[in-house]
Amino acid sequence: MIAAELASGLSGQLLKLEQQILRSHQSIEHWLRGHWLEHETPFYASVDLRNSGFKLAPVDTNLFPGGFNNLKPEFLPLCVQAAMAAVQKLCPDAKGALLIPENHTRNQYYLQNVAQIQSILRMAGMKVRVGTLIPEITAPTTLDLPGGAKLTLEPLVRRGNRIGLQDFDPCVVVLNNDLSAGAPAILENLEQQVIPPLFAGWSTRRKSRHFAAYSRIASEFARLIDIDPWVIDPYFGVCGEINFQERTGEECLAGWVDAVLTKVRAKYKEYGIDRDPFVIVKADAGTYGMGIMTAKDPSDVRDLNRKQRNKMAVVKEGLSVTDALVQEGVYTFETVKDAVAEPVIYMIDQFVVGGFYRVHTGRGQDENLNAPGMQFEPMPFDTSCLLPDPDANPDCGVNRMYAYGVVARLALAAASIELEEMAAEQEAQAEQLRKLA
Amino acid sequence: MIAAELASGLSGQLLKLEQQILRSHQSIEHWLRGHWLEHETPFYASVDLRNSGFKLAPVDTNLFPGGFNNLKPEFLPLCVQAAMAAVQKLCPDAKGALLIPENHTRNQYYLQNVAQIQSILRMAGMKVRVGTLIPEITAPTTLDLPGGAKLTLEPLVRRGNRIGLQDFDPCVVVLNNDLSAGAPAILENLEQQVIPPLFAGWSTRRKSRHFAAYSRIASEFARLIDIDPWVIDPYFGVCGEINFQERTGEECLAGWVDAVLTKVRAKYKEYGIDRDPFVIVKADAGTYGMGIMTAKDPSDVRDLNRKQRNKMAVVKEGLSVTDALVQEGVYTFETVKDAVAEPVIYMIDQFVVGGFYRVHTGRGQDENLNAPGMQFEPMPFDTSCLLPDPDANPDCGVNRMYAYGVVARLALAAASIELEEMAAEQEAQAEQLRKLA
Repeated sequence: MIAAELASGLSGQLLKLEQQILRSHQSIEHWLRGHWLEHETPFYASVDLRNSGFKLAPVDTNLFPGGFNNLKPEFLPLCVQAAMAAVQKLCPDAKGALLIPENHTRNQYYLQNVAQIQSILRMAGMKVRVGTLIPEITAPTTLDLPGGAKLTLEPLVRRGNRIGLQDFDPCVVVLNNDLSAGAPAILENLEQQVIPPLFAGWSTRRKSRHFAAYSRIASEFARLIDIDPWVIDPYFGVCGEINFQERTGEECLAGWVDAVLTKVRAKYKEYGIDRDPFVIVKADAGTYGMGIMTAKDPSDVRDLNRKQRNKMAVVKEGLSVTDALVQEGVYTFETVKDAVAEPVIYMIDQFVVGGFYRVHTGRGQDENLNAPGMQFEPMPFDTSCLLPDPDANPDCGVNRMYAYGVVARLALAAASIELEEMAAEQEAQAEQLRKLA
Repeated sequence: MIAAELASGLSGQLLKLEQQILRSHQSIEHWLRGHWLEHETPFYASVDLRNSGFKLAPVDTNLFPGGFNNLKPEFLPLCVQAAMAAVQKLCPDAKGALLIPENHTRNQYYLQNVAQIQSILRMAGMKVRVGTLIPEITAPTTLDLPGGAKLTLEPLVRRGNRIGLQDFDPCVVVLNNDLSAGAPAILENLEQQVIPPLFAGWSTRRKSRHFAAYSRIASEFARLIDIDPWVIDPYFGVCGEINFQERTGEECLAGWVDAVLTKVRAKYKEYGIDRDPFVIVKADAGTYGMGIMTAKDPSDVRDLNRKQRNKMAVVKEGLSVTDALVQEGVYTFETVKDAVAEPVIYMIDQFVVGGFYRVHTGRGQDENLNAPGMQFEPMPFDTSCLLPDPDANPDCGVNRMYAYGVVARLALAAASIELEEMAAEQEAQAEQLRKLA
């Protein structure tokens, strides 16, 4: 396979991690099966990993994955089979599904992703039509996609507590919209099942909750395979009093930057890693790589100019940032033809269905690669993440992909706990409202 | 893809079937999901199909499939993913599995199949070792397989109600042995789960029960997609008083041959099919294509010479034939480079994971292709059976494979009912024994 090169010269720890993962393969799968007996699997997810040679960790878990078009076509049957398993589990009685995507009609890549999800669900045996939240689309509108495919967006029609299209009353709603602007009224209080649930959107979801759940999962996993949890788990802190434009909360932020850097510095020292620690400051809610910066010193977040503050102040859909996550930065030492590469793993149900490298020429090893204006090249993984080979080198293609699939599934497990916690909170809130009424 | 050619010139009916299957794709998947909510999926199975251009039907359903080595390597991830789903469903808590294969140590192809099953289960995260029933193997014995792979067979060790190996106490036993000689004592009354159950072996299983269940499934399915059930369901009768060597039961057999031929002749007339109907007479219990003959007239089963009688009298492991299935013969009009071809579909859990053509140069269109001494060439399907394309010709590669996958899953659904009925009978017998005691 065309694997990315690990160019760190510091791969001792990672090799140990890959060895331990490979050696503990059966315990890991057994442990994951146990997890999925207790917790409902998210319908789908993608996880951005960073691989520094001494650390392999998730840095972002997307519950509304937007790059199915980037997977290798050869692995389409794997997606269809996993989707069949997901449907059998979540909504076996459903025949029709309404897919609701993001409103980016000008992003051809994203539209190809939507068409691909539609196609996967169709091949899995569902009748799937695409409903749009874009108010300007008042009649079915067919868009031509590169390669000759077509995608028809139709206006949503609400009838009582059901959502559908003009002549389509679906059993289930599949969201591919992260609801950054909040859950729209037209989707509230539906009697149909919504997958993932509305509260998984960014108006309620928090990265800090995800990574707190991930830390617990990572600790348990680290005990299972006898590794230092830090090798798979980035330190983080969260600061909830930020207003970038009014410059309030700067001290809190600087304090967390300092605290996280100090912890990372100690770990780098422990492992003899001769690199500058850094942190990534990002909005606790939100996506699309807006509102993200790198800091190597607390002063980096104190002395922001107006432009930097404006950039940090809002994320997608104009959502303003009040809570910031300060996350240990993980160097990317994987490169493809000298360009920095970040693996992205795709999952449907409990299964890893594929992945790709986000390859970026204009960015450094310590920068976020999912940023506006980035020119990334998706490079699909050549091999699946399902074929570990105990007799081969732990760092060979199939085994590295297997390790990626394992760490991504830990993030998926964390997401399942995160969603459960949120469901319980929603339930408690509803209960309180009922009591007040 | 390299598809087999359908050379019948009679494909009108089949095209209609393929069209109806493609058109009803969503209803079919919905209906199958409903079935798997109610019935436990067999762990794995393979189904031999015959495609006559006017009829597409299963002729044999194997609950201990022996040709995983014939699947295209590219679809290995699909097998691993389906095995993960099966394990999650049947034995999520199991870590170690004991695989018990057939005793054919000289059949390199079969040994490759065993190695492939071991490899699939290992990649799905199980610790898998192979235990053999061969009494001569008293110490672990490693066999070299073509291509450099190795397979280690180890002697079984029974401890109380548990079966295992010298230093291996597995949670679950996976059978790849059809128990034609009966369930060996060493496997009786185990506290471990045995998959498939012992009673799925040929000492208790009957083809007639399978095809009776299949007929019910086929009728229901035919109503669902509005086709004549005959198009997917071979007529059959069963004769339970046979002794080929003592020449008793010949009249019963001839009577059934006549009855089935008469019904088929009427159907051929109804559809304007200008072919000679034929039946296949085979042992109701047993496998490996022994004890099988073609008949086009009742007299064909009356005037058997000694050699023919001897051939019909026993199947594998010397099991003698007392019950015979008289099954409508389905012509094979698929050819690969002028050789007769028969599709074989492989399933794990509820999923079609691949298939191959059994291509045979020395046999006719009305003969069984799975016969001793046959020289068949396995030709793996180039495409998966999971990618139906409603916009393409119903008879194109992906769509024909999808149709094959659907009919094979009907046979799988029949097997699930058959196994349930047998489990209920076993339970009733045990209950009766308890009462007598």
